Amino acid sequence: MPSPVVVQQIDRADPSVIARLGQAGVATVHESQTRSGLMSARLRPIQQDVSLAGSAVTISAPPGDNWMIHVAIEQLQPGDVLVLAPTAPCDMGYFGDLLATSALARGCRALIIDAGVRDTRDLRRMGFGVWSSAVSAQGTVKETLGSVNVPIVCGGALVNPGDVIVADDDGVCVVPRATADTVMAAAQKRLDAEEAKRRRLESGELGLDIYDMRPRLAEKGLKYV
Amino acid sequence: MPSPVVVQQIDRADPSVIARLGQAGVATVHESQTRSGLMSARLRPIQQDVSLAGSAVTISAPPGDNWMIHVAIEQLQPGDVLVLAPTAPCDMGYFGDLLATSALARGCRALIIDAGVRDTRDLRRMGFGVWSSAVSAQGTVKETLGSVNVPIVCGGALVNPGDVIVADDDGVCVVPRATADTVMAAAQKRLDAEEAKRRRLESGELGLDIYDMRPRLAEKGLKYV
Amino acid sequence: MPSPVVVQQIDRADPSVIARLGQAGVATVHESQTRSGLMSARLRPIQQDVSLAGSAVTISAPPGDNWMIHVAIEQLQPGDVLVLAPTAPCDMGYFGDLLATSALARGCRALIIDAGVRDTRDLRRMGFGVWSSAVSAQGTVKETLGSVNVPIVCGGALVNPGDVIVADDDGVCVVPRATADTVMAAAQKRLDAEEAKRRRLESGELGLDIYDMRPRLAEKGLKYV
Amino acid sequence: MPSPVVVQQIDRADPSVIARLGQAGVATVHESQTRSGLMSARLRPIQQDVSLAGSAVTISAPPGDNWMIHVAIEQLQPGDVLVLAPTAPCDMGYFGDLLATSALARGCRALIIDAGVRDTRDLRRMGFGVWSSAVSAQGTVKETLGSVNVPIVCGGALVNPGDVIVADDDGVCVVPRATADTVMAAAQKRLDAEEAKRRRLESGELGLDIYDMRPRLAEKGLKYV
Amino acid sequence: MPSPVVVQQIDRADPSVIARLGQAGVATVHESQTRSGLMSARLRPIQQDVSLAGSAVTISAPPGDNWMIHVAIEQLQPGDVLVLAPTAPCDMGYFGDLLATSALARGCRALIIDAGVRDTRDLRRMGFGVWSSAVSAQGTVKETLGSVNVPIVCGGALVNPGDVIVADDDGVCVVPRATADTVMAAAQKRLDAEEAKRRRLESGELGLDIYDMRPRLAEKGLKYV
Amino acid sequence: MPSPVVVQQIDRADPSVIARLGQAGVATVHESQTRSGLMSARLRPIQQDVSLAGSAVTISAPPGDNWMIHVAIEQLQPGDVLVLAPTAPCDMGYFGDLLATSALARGCRALIIDAGVRDTRDLRRMGFGVWSSAVSAQGTVKETLGSVNVPIVCGGALVNPGDVIVADDDGVCVVPRATADTVMAAAQKRLDAEEAKRRRLESGELGLDIYDMRPRLAEKGLKYV
Repeated sequence: MPSPVVVQQIDRADPSVIARLGQAGVATVHESQTRSGLMSARLRPIQQDVSLAGSAVTISAPPGDNWMIHVAIEQLQPGDVLVLAPTAPCDMGYFGDLLATSALARGCRALIIDAGVRDTRDLRRMGFGVWSSAVSAQGTVKETLGSVNVPIVCGGALVNPGDVIVADDDGVCVVPRATADTVMAAAQKRLDAEEAKRRRLESGELGLDIYDMRPRLAEKGLKYV
Repeated sequence: MPSPVVVQQIDRADPSVIARLGQAGVATVHESQTRSGLMSARLRPIQQDVSLAGSAVTISAPPGDNWMIHVAIEQLQPGDVLVLAPTAPCDMGYFGDLLATSALARGCRALIIDAGVRDTRDLRRMGFGVWSSAVSAQGTVKETLGSVNVPIVCGGALVNPGDVIVADDDGVCVVPRATADTVMAAAQKRLDAEEAKRRRLESGELGLDIYDMRPRLAEKGLKYV
Repeated sequence: MPSPVVVQQIDRADPSVIARLGQAGVATVHESQTRSGLMSARLRPIQQDVSLAGSAVTISAPPGDNWMIHVAIEQLQPGDVLVLAPTAPCDMGYFGDLLATSALARGCRALIIDAGVRDTRDLRRMGFGVWSSAVSAQGTVKETLGSVNVPIVCGGALVNPGDVIVADDDGVCVVPRATADTVMAAAQKRLDAEEAKRRRLESGELGLDIYDMRPRLAEKGLKYV
Repeated sequence: MPSPVVVQQIDRADPSVIARLGQAGVATVHESQTRSGLMSARLRPIQQDVSLAGSAVTISAPPGDNWMIHVAIEQLQPGDVLVLAPTAPCDMGYFGDLLATSALARGCRALIIDAGVRDTRDLRRMGFGVWSSAVSAQGTVKETLGSVNVPIVCGGALVNPGDVIVADDDGVCVVPRATADTVMAAAQKRLDAEEAKRRRLESGELGLDIYDMRPRLAEKGLKYV
Repeated sequence: MPSPVVVQQIDRADPSVIARLGQAGVATVHESQTRSGLMSARLRPIQQDVSLAGSAVTISAPPGDNWMIHVAIEQLQPGDVLVLAPTAPCDMGYFGDLLATSALARGCRALIIDAGVRDTRDLRRMGFGVWSSAVSAQGTVKETLGSVNVPIVCGGALVNPGDVIVADDDGVCVVPRATADTVMAAAQKRLDAEEAKRRRLESGELGLDIYDMRPRLAEKGLKYV
Repeated sequence: MPSPVVVQQIDRADPSVIARLGQAGVATVHESQTRSGLMSARLRPIQQDVSLAGSAVTISAPPGDNWMIHVAIEQLQPGDVLVLAPTAPCDMGYFGDLLATSALARGCRALIIDAGVRDTRDLRRMGFGVWSSAVSAQGTVKETLGSVNVPIVCGGALVNPGDVIVADDDGVCVVPRATADTVMAAAQKRLDAEEAKRRRLESGELGLDIYDMRPRLAEKGLKYV
């Protein structure tokens, strides 16, 4: 049974692999690890056309209590992403421009939160990326402890501290730290294959032919009339 | 009882009528056909400030299976709009940048889908319009047949292949092919009347007076205090 | 028991206080009146990066009936904000570009509505601010009376006519007219204090130290490992 | 373009086929017509352990206006089921114990409605079956016309007047009148086959063996460890 | 601006009027006060076939904090109903069998809560009525103050302490204390009129004739075909 | 990266501890493991007044594909509970009376599923307990592999095969196998303490006094007026 704890040492993936996962994007990365690790579609970006990746500093916080975010900020290293899961559903505004100012000062540029945020206009202006399940001006209290850098379930996905978070307009995906390399290798193959397919499709060739689907469609019984 | 089928010949409305319906916009068109044909508000555009109209190429697809989109693309003609209804509720990402590349190569510039899409940033960049009920990176399989160019219910509205789809920031409306002309004539009258009213309202005249509402309000019992 | 009524004389707060509340923003104002008056997060702006404040002209309207908006527009004064609560949940499009044209001609620049709006692209172009719980092209009728400038519950918050409405990207907050001054004074103190904290956080100082949180965290039992 | 109309003559399916479809139940009937015709899961019964089938008398009604139910009741014949779709989403209480009394007097024992009902305790006591998307005491008006016995989309399913409605604890399914016989024949085969399978499963035999699934699982790559 | 307070003296309506309102039921009472005071349909009973009425003892509580329920219980008198609105949306379980035991000991037999409850099976066994917006085993804390017997907005309806709460299978309605008599008089007229109509409808007479609807339907343009 | 796998050997907790956890119930068990392991409130029982506990046999299944349930049934031992999480949100009916017949034949009496079930009336009749996030007659396919007895996230809670599932009217809670003993010991203490408190509350003593809350309320600033 867990008691409130802050884990101060966590391992992170190779920064160059993290950067490449961010460029590959959520859809490609998700496919490349056999469709695992995707967070719920209720987590939406508050900004448009931003893609990024970073190492998860995780926060398990009580509903309506953002005290542990202050604790977590001290644990941040450049390139980290804060990931907060409340222990019960909550859409209050845990995070705003002051906390973002503090996180940015530690080199953290994004927050993933299965709850609400506020000061969204300021956050966009500051270039601080947010994926959240709500926007709400409703503030929180600082009364009850939680934990930092423990395993959490956020948006239905298991996140261990130090896992790689990939986020873009399509949502958020978690890549386990230990398999980041392998996933990126699979993603690169996929990107290369897609590039070739994209050219053939642009030229008007059909997926039906490129993927040789016609025989199987016929075998399954599709009728053309 | 339907079995999987692809209807290859469908009739389409007059392109100039389609274009004019697109300029009239969803709210006006919906009013002009006695408020029928509007899809559910859960279908939202992934882009802002885009209006368009086109002929529906319809897809009935199993939940989580996008195989029939490949089949449908072969049936596309320039100006067509893909319209997909899953046979059970599903928010998975049926459609992304590769399928959009293929659709664009056939002259199709939009998708209406009561399910999810992915690669949304790329789709916006490509100028491919999407109205969907979800955004999700979760991919689909290609295992079970559906049908192309059969009547479907999408977002609560009946769509026959070749019907005119009108879509803008307010949502999506379906105009039956056979009545496209009549609806556009009614829409034009409405637009003309609105233009006159707009000028009177801009000058400070009140709707209460323009529409002569005061006597009926009094008759119904409205009290001013 | 209320019967349909239009209250023609309402008191409004001091325009300079209203303007300053608008600049303070929803999150700050909400905190400054002990976290009361916030509307539900289901009311979302149809535009981005717009903040404003104004005096509420309230409308209690039947579901799917926008007749009383015409009545309310006659009561508008420059700087007012229309606030509409339907008497039953409804996501139909009560309001579009013609009504906005009329409201703008009276000096009203915004609508808060716990229901739907349409012509959203036009409304953005006209600079008319809207916070609504839905976007829908579905039009309404003009058959049943409601009331104007009576107390209403909108988005879960009580609004009296003449109360100050503050709205931005984070949502909508209601400030009772009688306490607008006091709330603004509290908000100003908060803004001043935040500015000082922002500078310290930017320089890398931690909230843990600025707010002297460490002793209380230890006392509550937080463990660092 | 439709104008308000009441169709007085509709064809109905054979009563004995209707009765047998009711006994087969929603899940079996839905499977037996290739998984078409199922209404959305948002339509839920207000009672438990009731199954029935009947001929649809359809109502297209404005949101928040139940006038056309009175009109429809005159068209009812014994064994009919009222099916109401509002023209915009609405959860108001269209129907209560007085309307049920009137419908029962015409031999109608059920209502399917993609909106709200009230007096639910009375309706259960009276043995009047209801599948609705909401329960609400909020009453409606009688101001705007709709139509009776026209094709409607209810809960996402197309319903033509005279179609067979099958409803039980699992939801609601529509069987087109013309295919009621064929569907019932397919359902009977399915029921017979299920009975045999049920006995084998009860005795502890596995689906893996009854359906000979093991070779295909192995071929697809399933590993036992 | 409110600070945490417990109002110890509240006025209540006449017990015999309260009892009669409970017998009239939510739908009738709501109609009898011009369709005002209905709480949102998201508040649902955890039991079936229970109707009641009582005087509101109101609680404004922070999200996830049930401390003020203990404070409120001391204020209860026989026949009271607890009404709790959280200051932000929350579905945690504020109330279970121990609190119900304590409330019952003071003569309170029901709770209305726009949040969650737990121990629902025990609550049903104890005959303690609950209308809530959620069921959740998730417990709350006791850290932050709220208020007792102040005006609150619960389920979108304004509730003053001492107002009459009427609740049954259809939902919850609030009757202002000062108008309880008048509303009950109107309700009684309605009940009498309904009884007469019920008999005529049972005998097969149509609403179309009882309410003389045919001329107005024809005037509005309804066509029979 | 996981490939489809069936783990055939799993450890289970002591049957007597499992039985006692079932008697303690979800709310007590959840509190006794520091409020962890609770599944989302969207999982609701299809029956009333049933409490149980068992060992989890976990299933990770594709959306709309129930093939792996057949595979899982072979792994069942008496007292086990099936726990299924789809890899994307899905409300289709994965499970009905035939699968329940087969599960019962293996001694399994319950299913926890973050998706839909059908034949709900039959399942209740058979005494097979179900907690699901949907009821739907919509059937699934058998085309794509998943895994059995791997760690899954179901309803937002991490479940390892062999963990103890406790379910009742309040929802579902997961107790890690390794800590089942300790959690049950804590639960027993809690039950004993609650029994004593219950008697004092029944006698009319107040929680304010039993828990000595008055000094802390006063210190926090609560005012009685």
